[in-house]
Amino acid sequence: MVHYKLTYFDARGLAETARQLFVLADVEFEDNRLTVEEFQKLKPSLPAGQVPILTVDGFEISQSATIWRYLARKFGYAGKTPEEEATADSIVDHFKDFLNSFKHYGAGLFFGKTQEELDRARKEIVEPAVQVYFSILKNQLEKTKTGYLVGSELTYADVAVAENLTTLKNTAFFHPEEEKSIASFHQKVLETPKLKEYLEKRKFSTL
Amino acid sequence: MVHYKLTYFDARGLAETARQLFVLADVEFEDNRLTVEEFQKLKPSLPAGQVPILTVDGFEISQSATIWRYLARKFGYAGKTPEEEATADSIVDHFKDFLNSFKHYGAGLFFGKTQEELDRARKEIVEPAVQVYFSILKNQLEKTKTGYLVGSELTYADVAVAENLTTLKNTAFFHPEEEKSIASFHQKVLETPKLKEYLEKRKFSTL
Repeated sequence: MVHYKLTYFDARGLAETARQLFVLADVEFEDNRLTVEEFQKLKPSLPAGQVPILTVDGFEISQSATIWRYLARKFGYAGKTPEEEATADSIVDHFKDFLNSFKHYGAGLFFGKTQEELDRARKEIVEPAVQVYFSILKNQLEKTKTGYLVGSELTYADVAVAENLTTLKNTAFFHPEEEKSIASFHQKVLETPKLKEYLEKRKFSTL
Repeated sequence: MVHYKLTYFDARGLAETARQLFVLADVEFEDNRLTVEEFQKLKPSLPAGQVPILTVDGFEISQSATIWRYLARKFGYAGKTPEEEATADSIVDHFKDFLNSFKHYGAGLFFGKTQEELDRARKEIVEPAVQVYFSILKNQLEKTKTGYLVGSELTYADVAVAENLTTLKNTAFFHPEEEKSIASFHQKVLETPKLKEYLEKRKFSTL
């Protein structure tokens, strides 16, 4: 049996999409969650000093979206045609661009910035980025008309985006009552049977 | 015949890897180069207001790395196994992280920032990022020992990184005499027969 080991902080963040792909595929993995101190020790040995890292029987993969895509292709959540794969990849790249803005708030929260700094990041950086990002999601949902972002079945793009919407809801950037189509997409993904069961048992974390 | 149309500025930047994949595969494409004014007109209709955009018989793909990966898979430059694909994707994601730093200089140059602003971006943002990025490339070249970044044949990761090394050389961030393994990788990719022929005819642009 292949041994998968996923190394990240004790948070959802950039690792949770990978965890949920394992859940969807019913595949066991070692969920290696580091304290900030453990991470600092490991950091010099990591490519660009970053987590998550996935090891597959010792073969190491860095970069979150690459890890998700690798698992998505293995487990059948990458899209059914080259065009669906490109659509999923593109949405995930737009999502990662959004994260480059969101991290000014999210990493600030995780590493304990002041309320004033967080408020400034919210207003000046994250809120404008949410507008751009949500317009991409809404256009895409209008195109597919299936309730999913790509084609007619769940892909890793849905998992990544829905997972992040939970974070944006927890941090008051996403108000479901104001964003009907995104809210119903979010709900649809969370109700995927295997995910639903997993999410009911998952411990709460803001990020 | 499939009609490919690649829309970008009249620059190498984020489109050139796609152009070179077309060259490598001997596939014709429409090279739609916008002036800054034309781009401003088109911007409101683009996902996240960004180029490059690839259309494939009208099917639109946004996000540069997604476009490169789509073409790489079609044309056989994506890696030969799921692990090689993940390695190529990961290098490209690290490269894109680097670009998030480099853009403070590169976009500054393209859109005419002052010399003082460019000097500050060089020293405070780009030079530290170059160190991190080059250490990833050197580790990878040491792993493969083939002169390529992934396995033993050219992939889209090599094309993207080598293309950007030309930019880093033009802007004095990459000094081949100080970085032997990266320099010999760069040279090896530039000497790929079809690329070599193309590069000899390509008009010079810094970025």
